[in-house]
Amino acid sequence: MSRPDTPVKLAAVAAPDQPDVTPALEELYQGFEEQLLVPLWTEIGDLMPRRPRSRAVPHLWRWQDLRALAARAGEIVPVGRGGERRAMALANPALGGRPFATPTLWAAIQYLMPGEDAPEHRHTQHAFRFVVEGSGVWTVVGGDPVPMNRGDFLPQAGWNMHAHHNATREPMAWIDGLDIPFQYGNETQFFEFGRDQISDAERITPARSRSERLWGHPGLRPLSVGDLAPGTPLLSYKWEFTDRALADQLALEREGYGGTVEPGHAAVRFTNPADGSDVLPTIRAEFHRLTRGTQSAPVRETGSSVFQVFDGSGTVTVGDRTWSVSRGDLFVVPSWEPFSARSEAGDTDSDSGALDLFRFSDAPIFAKLDLFRSQKDAR
Amino acid sequence: MSRPDTPVKLAAVAAPDQPDVTPALEELYQGFEEQLLVPLWTEIGDLMPRRPRSRAVPHLWRWQDLRALAARAGEIVPVGRGGERRAMALANPALGGRPFATPTLWAAIQYLMPGEDAPEHRHTQHAFRFVVEGSGVWTVVGGDPVPMNRGDFLPQAGWNMHAHHNATREPMAWIDGLDIPFQYGNETQFFEFGRDQISDAERITPARSRSERLWGHPGLRPLSVGDLAPGTPLLSYKWEFTDRALADQLALEREGYGGTVEPGHAAVRFTNPADGSDVLPTIRAEFHRLTRGTQSAPVRETGSSVFQVFDGSGTVTVGDRTWSVSRGDLFVVPSWEPFSARSEAGDTDSDSGALDLFRFSDAPIFAKLDLFRSQKDAR
Amino acid sequence: MSRPDTPVKLAAVAAPDQPDVTPALEELYQGFEEQLLVPLWTEIGDLMPRRPRSRAVPHLWRWQDLRALAARAGEIVPVGRGGERRAMALANPALGGRPFATPTLWAAIQYLMPGEDAPEHRHTQHAFRFVVEGSGVWTVVGGDPVPMNRGDFLPQAGWNMHAHHNATREPMAWIDGLDIPFQYGNETQFFEFGRDQISDAERITPARSRSERLWGHPGLRPLSVGDLAPGTPLLSYKWEFTDRALADQLALEREGYGGTVEPGHAAVRFTNPADGSDVLPTIRAEFHRLTRGTQSAPVRETGSSVFQVFDGSGTVTVGDRTWSVSRGDLFVVPSWEPFSARSEAGDTDSDSGALDLFRFSDAPIFAKLDLFRSQKDAR
Amino acid sequence: MSRPDTPVKLAAVAAPDQPDVTPALEELYQGFEEQLLVPLWTEIGDLMPRRPRSRAVPHLWRWQDLRALAARAGEIVPVGRGGERRAMALANPALGGRPFATPTLWAAIQYLMPGEDAPEHRHTQHAFRFVVEGSGVWTVVGGDPVPMNRGDFLPQAGWNMHAHHNATREPMAWIDGLDIPFQYGNETQFFEFGRDQISDAERITPARSRSERLWGHPGLRPLSVGDLAPGTPLLSYKWEFTDRALADQLALEREGYGGTVEPGHAAVRFTNPADGSDVLPTIRAEFHRLTRGTQSAPVRETGSSVFQVFDGSGTVTVGDRTWSVSRGDLFVVPSWEPFSARSEAGDTDSDSGALDLFRFSDAPIFAKLDLFRSQKDAR
Repeated sequence: MSRPDTPVKLAAVAAPDQPDVTPALEELYQGFEEQLLVPLWTEIGDLMPRRPRSRAVPHLWRWQDLRALAARAGEIVPVGRGGERRAMALANPALGGRPFATPTLWAAIQYLMPGEDAPEHRHTQHAFRFVVEGSGVWTVVGGDPVPMNRGDFLPQAGWNMHAHHNATREPMAWIDGLDIPFQYGNETQFFEFGRDQISDAERITPARSRSERLWGHPGLRPLSVGDLAPGTPLLSYKWEFTDRALADQLALEREGYGGTVEPGHAAVRFTNPADGSDVLPTIRAEFHRLTRGTQSAPVRETGSSVFQVFDGSGTVTVGDRTWSVSRGDLFVVPSWEPFSARSEAGDTDSDSGALDLFRFSDAPIFAKLDLFRSQKDAR
Repeated sequence: MSRPDTPVKLAAVAAPDQPDVTPALEELYQGFEEQLLVPLWTEIGDLMPRRPRSRAVPHLWRWQDLRALAARAGEIVPVGRGGERRAMALANPALGGRPFATPTLWAAIQYLMPGEDAPEHRHTQHAFRFVVEGSGVWTVVGGDPVPMNRGDFLPQAGWNMHAHHNATREPMAWIDGLDIPFQYGNETQFFEFGRDQISDAERITPARSRSERLWGHPGLRPLSVGDLAPGTPLLSYKWEFTDRALADQLALEREGYGGTVEPGHAAVRFTNPADGSDVLPTIRAEFHRLTRGTQSAPVRETGSSVFQVFDGSGTVTVGDRTWSVSRGDLFVVPSWEPFSARSEAGDTDSDSGALDLFRFSDAPIFAKLDLFRSQKDAR
Repeated sequence: MSRPDTPVKLAAVAAPDQPDVTPALEELYQGFEEQLLVPLWTEIGDLMPRRPRSRAVPHLWRWQDLRALAARAGEIVPVGRGGERRAMALANPALGGRPFATPTLWAAIQYLMPGEDAPEHRHTQHAFRFVVEGSGVWTVVGGDPVPMNRGDFLPQAGWNMHAHHNATREPMAWIDGLDIPFQYGNETQFFEFGRDQISDAERITPARSRSERLWGHPGLRPLSVGDLAPGTPLLSYKWEFTDRALADQLALEREGYGGTVEPGHAAVRFTNPADGSDVLPTIRAEFHRLTRGTQSAPVRETGSSVFQVFDGSGTVTVGDRTWSVSRGDLFVVPSWEPFSARSEAGDTDSDSGALDLFRFSDAPIFAKLDLFRSQKDAR
Repeated sequence: MSRPDTPVKLAAVAAPDQPDVTPALEELYQGFEEQLLVPLWTEIGDLMPRRPRSRAVPHLWRWQDLRALAARAGEIVPVGRGGERRAMALANPALGGRPFATPTLWAAIQYLMPGEDAPEHRHTQHAFRFVVEGSGVWTVVGGDPVPMNRGDFLPQAGWNMHAHHNATREPMAWIDGLDIPFQYGNETQFFEFGRDQISDAERITPARSRSERLWGHPGLRPLSVGDLAPGTPLLSYKWEFTDRALADQLALEREGYGGTVEPGHAAVRFTNPADGSDVLPTIRAEFHRLTRGTQSAPVRETGSSVFQVFDGSGTVTVGDRTWSVSRGDLFVVPSWEPFSARSEAGDTDSDSGALDLFRFSDAPIFAKLDLFRSQKDAR
């Protein structure tokens, strides 16, 4: 007698908290399989754990390895319409080989050869670029050319047309962060092709994008701008300002006025200047600086993060994994895994040699849904 | 020469939009596999479709089948601490046999035998109960006994302690809706056990819960209540009010004043009386009534829904599937699949014989994240 | 030598905290007068008191006196276009004889003779009606006839066309509350005439307004309604619901579950069912019930209130004034004056003979501007 | 027969829209006077005008006149506890000689002699300082010394302790803006004295306040700061940034990208960097630049404004008044009076010689209460 074709597979097992294995139970389970039903009592441990238990695992990618592979891809893989981008995504080893750094976040190294264009398109996925080294590429967002240089954070909210262009004689690599896994899991994606070529006018890159000239002044809103689409209207958060903000916090701490999140640990969040909210509706981005000799307190959060070491070196601990890290290295922090960092020993009274960490996470999703929790563990 | 153990499996394939298959490419892909990288150009079609393309499929479950299996489970599967609930969840046939009606929503039939208790617990998952037939069970939420009768909608926001009790001589079935798959996919779940037994005082069920006596008066807020946790403080939306609201809309329409969403189609959303928002942070719930002879316009939405037929009969169409439905039947509408319903022919000038549909969806998630879209198709 | 014509009048006076009176000072003050300048140091005590010090004073109006004068006005003063309404406003004795119950609030008795119409108009001032006795008049708001009966609260947000009609053989009186003094002081008023006559269809009053049929169901939002103008869409809060909500709170208290703001004192706020906010953008409205033998704790608030006794009798204390009050009496509570009430002695275990108080205030203005404070004094 | 002592004075007058003057009417009015009632029909024209009709009038104060009187006050009027500040407020000629520039806004010139302190206090009134010339004074807000230089805008939300100190050998003048008339009219004021003397540490002024070091970086939020009180945490908006933002807008316009509110007219709003809202809960502040040869379109708004000419010269028109203005001149725009400005003729292709206007208004009050309207008239 053949069993019907059903994806539901239930096994009556002898275990505490499970019903006794009897022919009647096996018949019931067969009925469930046929009717596409799954009982809670066989699944509750997996579905409703006492605290978040991530399918993802902590993992580290070395920048030099990524960069070498990206350079090799630059030589043999063309970029153009269809494939759209020469981007290579981090695949968390516990997520089935899918290009998901975490269950919600995409993180990729993108690479553009001298003179190359990546064609224009738009999508509902929210995105940013972050530059750990190099310069010379710019992104054209809605016709506004945005230069990219080391330390710059370049967010771009969903549904904005955008293209990339490398105007230099050198290749350039950077990282892309998006909410692709989140939108994939929740099935909210729209996508449209734009122009195949950007205009000549868009190939002349000014030092500052138009978005920066309108929105890049602290606490000043241009009156000419009316209703705004979701996400920040500011397309570049230049390194110069981020660096100064972190240095200011550490100087205030040294003068006895606080300003840091904990001793030796400065941090800023990139925010939408129009309303102070997270820079993208689904992605939070932050920059952390640990002066020499600083050990941060372990913190757990619902939701996951990806970090990139921007400068300095030190040691990071995620759950039960610990790595020595240096410039460009990327690692992921799964949901509710404790994260802490330690900078190299040295003179704590200066910012020189500090460990600089760029971080992005899915926290805005959970904050808006009242599902965000965080907890500082004892060191 | 052995390949390293990696979950990333990349095949260089000859296809339009893909790089030429060469030994160099194959070597590059092997490097990607070793370094846990996945290129965008092999994945973009799946990850970034032109419009939402659900992994879930439309599917229908017949109430009589579910009820029969639930009754059988009542006879042979005990309910108690560990398994927690005698709940049997709809498993969408395209979601791998997991107890997921859609990628975000859990829908289950729960069954309680005469005199049985389901023990107290709490979880961050948001939940509700909806009663298509029967009565006699009540839910005790935070010590407040809430009776359950046909047509009642009983939401219960996350992290509230709750238990169930059947005080009658008859078994009772109802449906549970939760955001379990969403919180599972995004790893935000916390869970705690409560008391093993509710008190004797909680076993005496009044006709109205305390929450209804405080919050169940239209437009009237009790001044004694201060800050509220997320989610509605009203634990029961009684059928009497829902029915009257729908009847009022149809009467207004007949008098020439509008009030319905389209001719012959009345609809209400269950909302938090404290702030008018959706009744649960992640779940929207609605009730729709189609008078006889009404055909609703096909509507697409980002995100997914589960419907249960509350009364009447008719035909529903989801994407390319069409079913005749009657009381208790449950079906799912995946993201961006067009949905429409048609009631039975008959006298359109009365509510008698109308098709009554209860619906819940994940829309608040996407509304808060600026990812919600909807579209009315031509009929 | 003549002094210039200037409204500024400054006197150099010998007083602590004031500069010495010298010819130079007098000359300076004359310069100030000529240049229309006023120094802070002569005004700071008045402008910046340690706590709010109202220009208004506590005052009581007896309903029987108001009603008698209104009836007399009914006989000799016509109602029609130009004067618009037969409304007589409470003039706080300390506000210069202007029709201002408090610095922000207008409270008037309005009177309509059998068969009379008050013509249609609209204004930015937010308004409500409250009915302490009688019935038979209805208000037509945006073409929707709203019946008025004892205990009903009928808000009507600014810029809605409205008219009144008395279809009975009896005159009717009620009170109007508006933010006229606030909008007068801040100069935000717009006004437009509507039709001189309402239609015959609008003269047939149903038992419930269309607004109630759409919005008067607890926690249920009609899906047919899109974006809403400021202020509640529900045009009548019927006494039946208010009464039941208050009775429910007191019953909960007797059963040991709280629910009241203090022992024997139930209270509800009228709110916008679409978002839970105050019923009008500038006006808060509440209903309070004190069972027999209840003394409320003295409360101070920034901003002012007007109360009307709806039922029962008792004693109210505002600052250093105390009055015995009964049905229909109106009194004002200026900013930061402590208010308390005491019902008559008697059986505290029933609602019979309770002191029922309707209240409205300007609290939403100050809540939105972060200027609201309240304080409960020791009894 | 003596009339009772009542502030209500009603005269029965023969006029259209008024009831016939008869002995009965006169007797009724006497009854109203005795009972402190005022009929709507005698007041409606004043209280409910077709559009806002301000009691205030347009008026201009010349900076040189104000400055001369302030300097004279510096010589003969001491500053200290009690009088608190050497501030001289603009008194609108139509507001009864009270120190009210408009019905809601206070604008004063404040003056501090070399070495002088103005003692610490706090109040619920929201305040700012704006510096049209000079430097050398600083404000100490919550212990944070904030330097003041030409062009700087220095907001300080209510209930923050603050003092001023002049550390130089020169006197300094600046303007203060507050919502004193609004809070006076609505009776929401609290006030507390602080320390009589600031500490020596607070007398050493850094180039940037601590608030600027934490909050003065565009789009960057310090993670160390938790919940914030109402109003901006940034205590100084330095001229350097305002100037650059305006110049950027005009440059964008010249390049063909818009950015200005109208041709030749750049404008920014000072906003709270934490949430993008107006810098103070009750006060909006803006900076406008009109390049040479620019004429702005007449604009009407509910609510009132005060302008100060920061640089350049030109002509301003408020209602039916027109004045030539230059640096430091102050003028008021009453509610709904059309305002326009014209810069001097000249080269429109550069910012040189532009007319720079600082403006503050009460717009946030009316925006939050849904009472704000604006209208651009034809030129």
